[in-house]
Amino acid sequence: MNFDLSLYLVTDRSLSLGRPLIDVVEQAVKGGVTMVQLREKNCNSKEFYKEAYALKKLLVQYKVPLIINDRLDIALAVDADGLHIGQQDLPYPVARQLLGNDKIIGLSIENKEQLHQANQWDVDYIGLSPVFDTSTKTDTAKALGIQGVKEFTKLSKHPSIGIGGVNLTNAVDIIHAGANGLAVVSAIMSQSNPLNAARDLQSIIQTTKRKNNNEKV
Amino acid sequence: MNFDLSLYLVTDRSLSLGRPLIDVVEQAVKGGVTMVQLREKNCNSKEFYKEAYALKKLLVQYKVPLIINDRLDIALAVDADGLHIGQQDLPYPVARQLLGNDKIIGLSIENKEQLHQANQWDVDYIGLSPVFDTSTKTDTAKALGIQGVKEFTKLSKHPSIGIGGVNLTNAVDIIHAGANGLAVVSAIMSQSNPLNAARDLQSIIQTTKRKNNNEKV
Repeated sequence: MNFDLSLYLVTDRSLSLGRPLIDVVEQAVKGGVTMVQLREKNCNSKEFYKEAYALKKLLVQYKVPLIINDRLDIALAVDADGLHIGQQDLPYPVARQLLGNDKIIGLSIENKEQLHQANQWDVDYIGLSPVFDTSTKTDTAKALGIQGVKEFTKLSKHPSIGIGGVNLTNAVDIIHAGANGLAVVSAIMSQSNPLNAARDLQSIIQTTKRKNNNEKV
Repeated sequence: MNFDLSLYLVTDRSLSLGRPLIDVVEQAVKGGVTMVQLREKNCNSKEFYKEAYALKKLLVQYKVPLIINDRLDIALAVDADGLHIGQQDLPYPVARQLLGNDKIIGLSIENKEQLHQANQWDVDYIGLSPVFDTSTKTDTAKALGIQGVKEFTKLSKHPSIGIGGVNLTNAVDIIHAGANGLAVVSAIMSQSNPLNAARDLQSIIQTTKRKNNNEKV
């Protein structure tokens, strides 16, 4: 399955400033978000299913893949485009076997050992987590920093996104360090204008990618 | 799939008096537990998977079905014998479609409307919940009482278990009211001797079932 990691939105209902999640996501997609991960840590399965179902219906119109965080059953139930798992979720080989080869599976990587293991697997992308310390996810490992992104993207067989504390200010550095895309939460979810926020981020990402390519030439 | 609902253990790690869950379950099965439901509400997917995997390995030796609460992905991942869902979990038709017809699916029923709906579906059993108020599950509806069990079992197309506050003292009444089995948590998990606790409960259940049959003759 083809997918574009460049601007990867991770949802967080508690950060949407009271606006319905689906509205914020739609604005973000109109602004240039290329993938959406639905992450829900504090709701029951019925609510999670309903929300995933509604998002799937929305995103299919924009041809933007829906990725479900952690819950493979929800991904199956709504025929999502993929699953994102962390190191505390189902083991990757189990998830791949249940989901099949046609779905996207992303894996969060916090250290080199996990990176080397991911290189043995056919994961579709890795999330470098966290690039910076962040308040939107509290169970994270030590921040990798820009130097970590540089090192890890060189070692990785798989495309990668940087996640954790990503915003307009540090976007250039993360892409310049070699990440294929940026995963953002509050840098879009909590902005008064999610469309413009996505547009500004996507603009920086594309400009930096062009510069990266020129440097390589 | 054949299964025996008579003594149905629902796990709760926090009530096992510090003993490993798997040891308590094994003792309970030796004492006469006929089905085990793994319920985990406060652990990550990796832990849930590991625990389910270990229980499956244990229970297959005793030919006792393993039922997973809520999490269809965990049920698939360990090839559990079935899934138990409540009204706040995945919708029953979605769960059945994903799990197939060879697996057991049980559904918790809290009121008549839900009972009538369950009668339209091919659920394998229903859980009458709660029979009595209980401290081991806090998100429950109004207690059905013995009168409710009588009424609901008459109306149900499906076999049923009573759950919520079930213990040695009220076991006779619930089975006499028409339930096919008893779902217990602390009446086994929190006993100093889970094997004896299960044996005593199973003995009451069988005696009462024999009496029920004689009354019908």
